[in-house]
Amino acid sequence: MTTDMVTTPRIRKSPYFEATVRAGASQFTVYNKVYLPFGYDTPEAEYQAITEAVTIWDVACQRIVEISGPDAHAFTSLLTPRDLATCAPGRCRYVFITDPRGGILNDPVLLRLAEDRFWLSCADSDMAMWARGIAVHSGMDVAIDTPDVSPLQIQGPRAREVIVALFGQAMGELGYYHCRETALDGIPLVISRTGYSAELGFELYLMDGARGVELWDKVMAAGAPLGMKPAAPSRIRRIEAGILDYGVDMDETVNPFELGFERLVALDKDMDFIGRAALQGIKATGIRRRAVGLEIDGAPISYNERPWPLYRDGDMIGHATSVIHSPRLEKNIALAMVSVGSAQPGTAVCLATPDGERNAVIRELPFIDPNRRKSRA
Amino acid sequence: MTTDMVTTPRIRKSPYFEATVRAGASQFTVYNKVYLPFGYDTPEAEYQAITEAVTIWDVACQRIVEISGPDAHAFTSLLTPRDLATCAPGRCRYVFITDPRGGILNDPVLLRLAEDRFWLSCADSDMAMWARGIAVHSGMDVAIDTPDVSPLQIQGPRAREVIVALFGQAMGELGYYHCRETALDGIPLVISRTGYSAELGFELYLMDGARGVELWDKVMAAGAPLGMKPAAPSRIRRIEAGILDYGVDMDETVNPFELGFERLVALDKDMDFIGRAALQGIKATGIRRRAVGLEIDGAPISYNERPWPLYRDGDMIGHATSVIHSPRLEKNIALAMVSVGSAQPGTAVCLATPDGERNAVIRELPFIDPNRRKSRA
Repeated sequence: MTTDMVTTPRIRKSPYFEATVRAGASQFTVYNKVYLPFGYDTPEAEYQAITEAVTIWDVACQRIVEISGPDAHAFTSLLTPRDLATCAPGRCRYVFITDPRGGILNDPVLLRLAEDRFWLSCADSDMAMWARGIAVHSGMDVAIDTPDVSPLQIQGPRAREVIVALFGQAMGELGYYHCRETALDGIPLVISRTGYSAELGFELYLMDGARGVELWDKVMAAGAPLGMKPAAPSRIRRIEAGILDYGVDMDETVNPFELGFERLVALDKDMDFIGRAALQGIKATGIRRRAVGLEIDGAPISYNERPWPLYRDGDMIGHATSVIHSPRLEKNIALAMVSVGSAQPGTAVCLATPDGERNAVIRELPFIDPNRRKSRA
Repeated sequence: MTTDMVTTPRIRKSPYFEATVRAGASQFTVYNKVYLPFGYDTPEAEYQAITEAVTIWDVACQRIVEISGPDAHAFTSLLTPRDLATCAPGRCRYVFITDPRGGILNDPVLLRLAEDRFWLSCADSDMAMWARGIAVHSGMDVAIDTPDVSPLQIQGPRAREVIVALFGQAMGELGYYHCRETALDGIPLVISRTGYSAELGFELYLMDGARGVELWDKVMAAGAPLGMKPAAPSRIRRIEAGILDYGVDMDETVNPFELGFERLVALDKDMDFIGRAALQGIKATGIRRRAVGLEIDGAPISYNERPWPLYRDGDMIGHATSVIHSPRLEKNIALAMVSVGSAQPGTAVCLATPDGERNAVIRELPFIDPNRRKSRA
């Protein structure tokens, strides 16, 4: 459903807000206290643009938390089970932020801009509050800021052509999960080769909120000849790729092992991190549930407004968290969390939708691009 | 402006959501990741109901953070400059949560339910994240939870009659800023005599999210004969009373002294608290700006979507943060933050609205109910 939303000073308008309204955004949600455009066209039309051409997304709601100072490396390492020792300046990492129980508080993309300067490009939970709370008694010399930085994603097979048109050939060759500071006609930016799709993609981190519409217009001017369309992050594309949505597919009750992301947990890394003991315990005793894919019978499903229960032989075994119809697979697919005993691909289950039950089958994740997910840096 | 808002699983529906939609709520905002009804009728009609009869508000968005365990008192005291030593079980306090710089992270109502059990009924910032971050290295034995608790406010001169009808005479006599656990036909509740208006008011903290509509209906049935109307928190009423809105009138860059709330800062309290050194320093050197009232000339103003700049003799001296037309005062009034040099009541200033400049005059806060504000417990 959609409802009227009132704009209030409590919730930020993105620096791109006026440009997105002009481009046809009429529905918004709120993400990290920032308005996030929910779409400009049908999800199917936006899916076509991201899979066949290129899209531009206002994701200023990916709020940036900056950690800097002499102990920035040790402090950032404290927040995540990933080993950052091999993350050189100019490189990025997909990381989990874990609490003392091993639960996931956020899953940002980390950018190491310098030896002693890190950015967390955050999902929808307040990592500045968490990091500042940790810092109070950590005894470490760090500054934690929420700088004026507003990401814009350029995603789709023609994304590189847009970047080359704007920044030249060398920037188009920026390595996967690399980042670099630059400028566009004096607009200060960081660029990374990352994104919330499994398509070729870049992110532009605008570092001057007064120049959002100007940046948007320059990118659109370069992209229009390539078929660039403004779009919202594509639910269809991310579910096909098994990309998780924080607050939907996981929250603080979920740990990285349940998501199948053991490779992002360096239990024996040199530096201390929050959640190590709990995650060691979970690894020793094993998990009880696991994130899986789901194929669902019947007519196309466009959306689930809440998790839908899954049953097997009459017992509840878990929930489908993100359900969608994939135009490419011509199937209903979903991300789900189920008991390990029912996580085997091929297991037949029953999905309770608000409109009745559907037969479904457990599948491996991702549905498309198996190599991409495994290689996510 | 209003825009379409899409409901998503990331954002919670209140347990009262269906009842509020049925009662005519069509506009919502998002507060602490919960949908908050923005209104059912005109703000003026709702103002009339809260000043002359009684209103019921779905404020499930006041998310509750529970701090419990052997060190609950010391830990909660660590979070706020208020001295909690005199806050006995069954009592409430309006508190600021401060960071190491003395900046305000939130301004919850604190309920002490037992020696070792505290609730923070929070404004729009993630206090669970902050408290959990602090707890990691605090060395204190506490549990920090976000229990299934959903506040409902009953505000207006006839609020006591509603409480008496539902809970009997004794509960109607609950003292100002007192709280008590009870139940209504088996629905578990805490009741406090508090609220976000300067009217007589109570809050019902529902402790079973499955019974929201049932509770709403029972309260409406008791209140209807008294003229009870569903309403949103009244901006008009709170601005008249000088009640602040976190994220609008203050944020982490503002300290309690700037708001004139020195009495909520116990610099010399026995237990340690975060921000003590910074607040001692601010007290010693003095503040540079101060929250004030403002009376504004000209036609009625209904809303400011962002802070509006204030000028005096051509210099910017601050901002009006919350602007409204008061039907009772028949004037435009505002909460503002201005340089101390321009904070003297009677100072003539100039307000830059999006539709042009207006003459304005600095006034003392509050506009109405001087005694109530000073007595806020």
